[in-house]
Amino acid sequence: MVKERLYLFDTTLRDGAQTQGVQFSADEKHQIAAVLDELGIDYIEGGWPGANPTDTSFFASPPKTRATFTAFGMTKRAGRSVENDDVLAAVMNAGTSAVCLVGKAHDFHVTTALGITLEENTENLRASFAHIKAAGREGLFDAEHFFDGYKANPEYALEAVHAAYDAGARWIVLCDTNGGTLPDEISSIVTAVIASGIPGDHLAIHTHNDTENAVAGSLAAVLAGCRQVQGTLNGLGERCGNANLTTLIPTLLLKEPFASMFETGVSPDALAGLRRASRLLDDILNRVPAKQAPYVGASAFAHKSGLHASAIAKDPSTYEHIDPAAVGNTRIVPMSNQAGQSNLRARLADAGLEVAAGDPALARIVERIKEKEAQGYSYDTAQASFELLARDELGRMPQFFEVKRYRVTVERRRNKRNQMVSLSEAVVVTKVKGEKFLNVSESLGPDGSDQGPVNALSRALAKDLGPYQDIIDDMQLVDFKVRITNGGTEAVTRVIIDSEDGQGHRWSTVGVSANIVDASFDALVDAINWKLIRDGAQV
Amino acid sequence: MVKERLYLFDTTLRDGAQTQGVQFSADEKHQIAAVLDELGIDYIEGGWPGANPTDTSFFASPPKTRATFTAFGMTKRAGRSVENDDVLAAVMNAGTSAVCLVGKAHDFHVTTALGITLEENTENLRASFAHIKAAGREGLFDAEHFFDGYKANPEYALEAVHAAYDAGARWIVLCDTNGGTLPDEISSIVTAVIASGIPGDHLAIHTHNDTENAVAGSLAAVLAGCRQVQGTLNGLGERCGNANLTTLIPTLLLKEPFASMFETGVSPDALAGLRRASRLLDDILNRVPAKQAPYVGASAFAHKSGLHASAIAKDPSTYEHIDPAAVGNTRIVPMSNQAGQSNLRARLADAGLEVAAGDPALARIVERIKEKEAQGYSYDTAQASFELLARDELGRMPQFFEVKRYRVTVERRRNKRNQMVSLSEAVVVTKVKGEKFLNVSESLGPDGSDQGPVNALSRALAKDLGPYQDIIDDMQLVDFKVRITNGGTEAVTRVIIDSEDGQGHRWSTVGVSANIVDASFDALVDAINWKLIRDGAQV
Repeated sequence: MVKERLYLFDTTLRDGAQTQGVQFSADEKHQIAAVLDELGIDYIEGGWPGANPTDTSFFASPPKTRATFTAFGMTKRAGRSVENDDVLAAVMNAGTSAVCLVGKAHDFHVTTALGITLEENTENLRASFAHIKAAGREGLFDAEHFFDGYKANPEYALEAVHAAYDAGARWIVLCDTNGGTLPDEISSIVTAVIASGIPGDHLAIHTHNDTENAVAGSLAAVLAGCRQVQGTLNGLGERCGNANLTTLIPTLLLKEPFASMFETGVSPDALAGLRRASRLLDDILNRVPAKQAPYVGASAFAHKSGLHASAIAKDPSTYEHIDPAAVGNTRIVPMSNQAGQSNLRARLADAGLEVAAGDPALARIVERIKEKEAQGYSYDTAQASFELLARDELGRMPQFFEVKRYRVTVERRRNKRNQMVSLSEAVVVTKVKGEKFLNVSESLGPDGSDQGPVNALSRALAKDLGPYQDIIDDMQLVDFKVRITNGGTEAVTRVIIDSEDGQGHRWSTVGVSANIVDASFDALVDAINWKLIRDGAQV
Repeated sequence: MVKERLYLFDTTLRDGAQTQGVQFSADEKHQIAAVLDELGIDYIEGGWPGANPTDTSFFASPPKTRATFTAFGMTKRAGRSVENDDVLAAVMNAGTSAVCLVGKAHDFHVTTALGITLEENTENLRASFAHIKAAGREGLFDAEHFFDGYKANPEYALEAVHAAYDAGARWIVLCDTNGGTLPDEISSIVTAVIASGIPGDHLAIHTHNDTENAVAGSLAAVLAGCRQVQGTLNGLGERCGNANLTTLIPTLLLKEPFASMFETGVSPDALAGLRRASRLLDDILNRVPAKQAPYVGASAFAHKSGLHASAIAKDPSTYEHIDPAAVGNTRIVPMSNQAGQSNLRARLADAGLEVAAGDPALARIVERIKEKEAQGYSYDTAQASFELLARDELGRMPQFFEVKRYRVTVERRRNKRNQMVSLSEAVVVTKVKGEKFLNVSESLGPDGSDQGPVNALSRALAKDLGPYQDIIDDMQLVDFKVRITNGGTEAVTRVIIDSEDGQGHRWSTVGVSANIVDASFDALVDAINWKLIRDGAQV
């Protein structure tokens, strides 16, 4: 059977930017575009050029993608020509090869929200997409509220999409803007649109998750004939989010009837990077990864029930609908049993620590990790701290230096010019090979402003470690993530610190405490210890 | 049209207990059962009597519910009689009026996981449900892996469920145990089961969310004829969770075709308590509520886009699929860089600040918010800080007190017993109505351990504010969130603090600085100012 091409359109950078609490910088948009491009998405919608400074600057130096980079905007307004609409001009001037314009397809919105006649709206659609086509660009009509519009006035909804299609729009994007349309309705309305004369390979589906049916609605539309699916990574988006591409991609690639029907731009190798892509987005946004996320969540293949875990040991297909490796995820079985230990040995081997099967240290490491995780530690990303913990239990952890004490002070007061200023200062006392080192540091940034207590501590700690100073001199703290693992007044803080050295190695360490400064300090000490081990420092 | 009765079965206390990281105590089970009962659920499955000490003690003093309280267990094992199966006996001895037993319907599991013949399995089912019926109880057959089983061997899957049904099981629960069956398959298999002779009003659907289709699969099954829906509150459950009743209930009650077809045990009043029920479960489990949760999430009716917000002001149905009040939720029109002035005025009005259209202060507020957001502030959630900023620009911000200076010290050193200990101490100097207040606080938690610099600062700041102390005495810091908005060494930190008072009001404030202590301090000061304004403090 010849597979049909199914296109994937990502709007993380546009509709995803409507997520409450999310505010992308242009730099973050570049990072996310790179993740999407590596995954094999066909279209990457970057934002709305001209709508805000971030998007304008992002489109001024757009990412170089294999995917079709797409600008979003709106169809021309009534009462002016396409040439004289400055909002549309800003979108066209971004120079992208594809342009997606939102416009109305629901009569109520035309008359209520826009306050124009249905004829004017139809003409705006026609003129806008003729303009895009004349400019040699690929046009997409984002038909807002299409499903609600079709239910209210099917004749006008169809008139609107046909106007855009006839004027040259490559894709008609059927949007369930309010997220209230259930999958069965989506299916029958898509069928009606195709029957009206717009072929399915010119139709895209765009759903929202307000009834938890965004994925199901998208699948129903594909079964009914749509050949483009729009969504966002990790289901970001306004209100309850957009259709989650992180779920749709593996479903379309791995599950029937889709797997046999369609070809997409996502290769099996790229699919195996899905979990990583999902985590990268969370990292960039400093969001807690959703444990229960389908396919990519930390719990997605976690078998807690004893009955399930023992059947899994006989045959994983007893309680797994796909192989977790296909999406780059891993099975989690209670750490106490056999499979748990073989996982652990593999991870230790990755760190260069060969441990024989059955070594009693393995059980001790598992036990210690359990205790630490109960306190709020997380070793998913903090591989360097995991290695240090394992080394400790294996008796292979050298003691390079000892921290005798530290003190950090943060003050806010008036300076002599009567301005309020802040000042952080740290004193760290270490003992290295019998010798005591007393170091003090302020924390002033390049502009002379205070950088806070963690920065001051990091500087004081790494200022002079005697014989080891040469090794740690090229170390830099490159990222710092903080998460409250336990809400409320007695919040426990988890700090993850990423460090880098002159050769470009990067490693992550973790610290946990009710005291954020203490948690940071522990992560800083781990970072230095890991670097000393890696570079073969001698005790 | 006469509405058919649709039954809701909750398994939060049984399948929900398989959620990674969730471990109910018997007391928590009692609290959750009360929440479910108030909601109007028909069946509450409490757990597995005899399987673990918690469940055994919970069933020993069961909750008094209007709902049918149900015990879970498994069908009798091969090679012994129902009377001699101690596992089954423990379940029956719990004395509940309904008993749900899991058993096999998939040939592969019978032979691989159980290692018995298909005939033996059928006989176990028959004998178990005859036993329940003879005891005068209502029997439910939890047909594990039914859909996978039907796909592999439809004859045997049907033989298994008919054996239980013919022996007297009131309900046959069709389980998609591995969560891999898509809605269309569920629909056609349910249709086949009904065609085989088990009426839909004896069929229940039980799905899992491994492809994000648990809700859609449940709805598809109901449309195909099932008249009982199983799920959990907030979608708790093994791996990716069970079908989310918090989403299914409003969908079944408010949306067509379901609303016209069915009657359930949930009244409109109880539905208006849905958001509260969802939050209660999160509170009991100390989980952060999912913002994007359909219907009940804090973002579910949050309109961030400026275009949406201005249309909402004209008519909420433009961008809302239901009235948020129906599920006890509220609309949020947040401020962000994409929002326009109409958005802003609506938000000010919500805060009791009426501002005339065209007031030049509006433009100043927008400008100031833009500047602040460029520095890393975010006012999406920090509504209280937004109000203070707006008041300041409107000239309506009273100055209750002035912070002259503060100093916080964090130390780690050995105590007299030679143990490493941490200690945080804060000094805050304020001036209130011309009088100076010098307050100092340590930060010791209930167990005497250090709680860190922010906690110490919060205590010192709120220790004595002179004439205002009465007003702030019932304030508590209830949550503390930290986000690094700018990676790298010169990271900028955003702190969001949630405060609560004795009347249950809750408000959020934000602070931003390269110095995390400074950022927290600013959010704490905002929190106090907002409370003073709210309670009408006089300058």
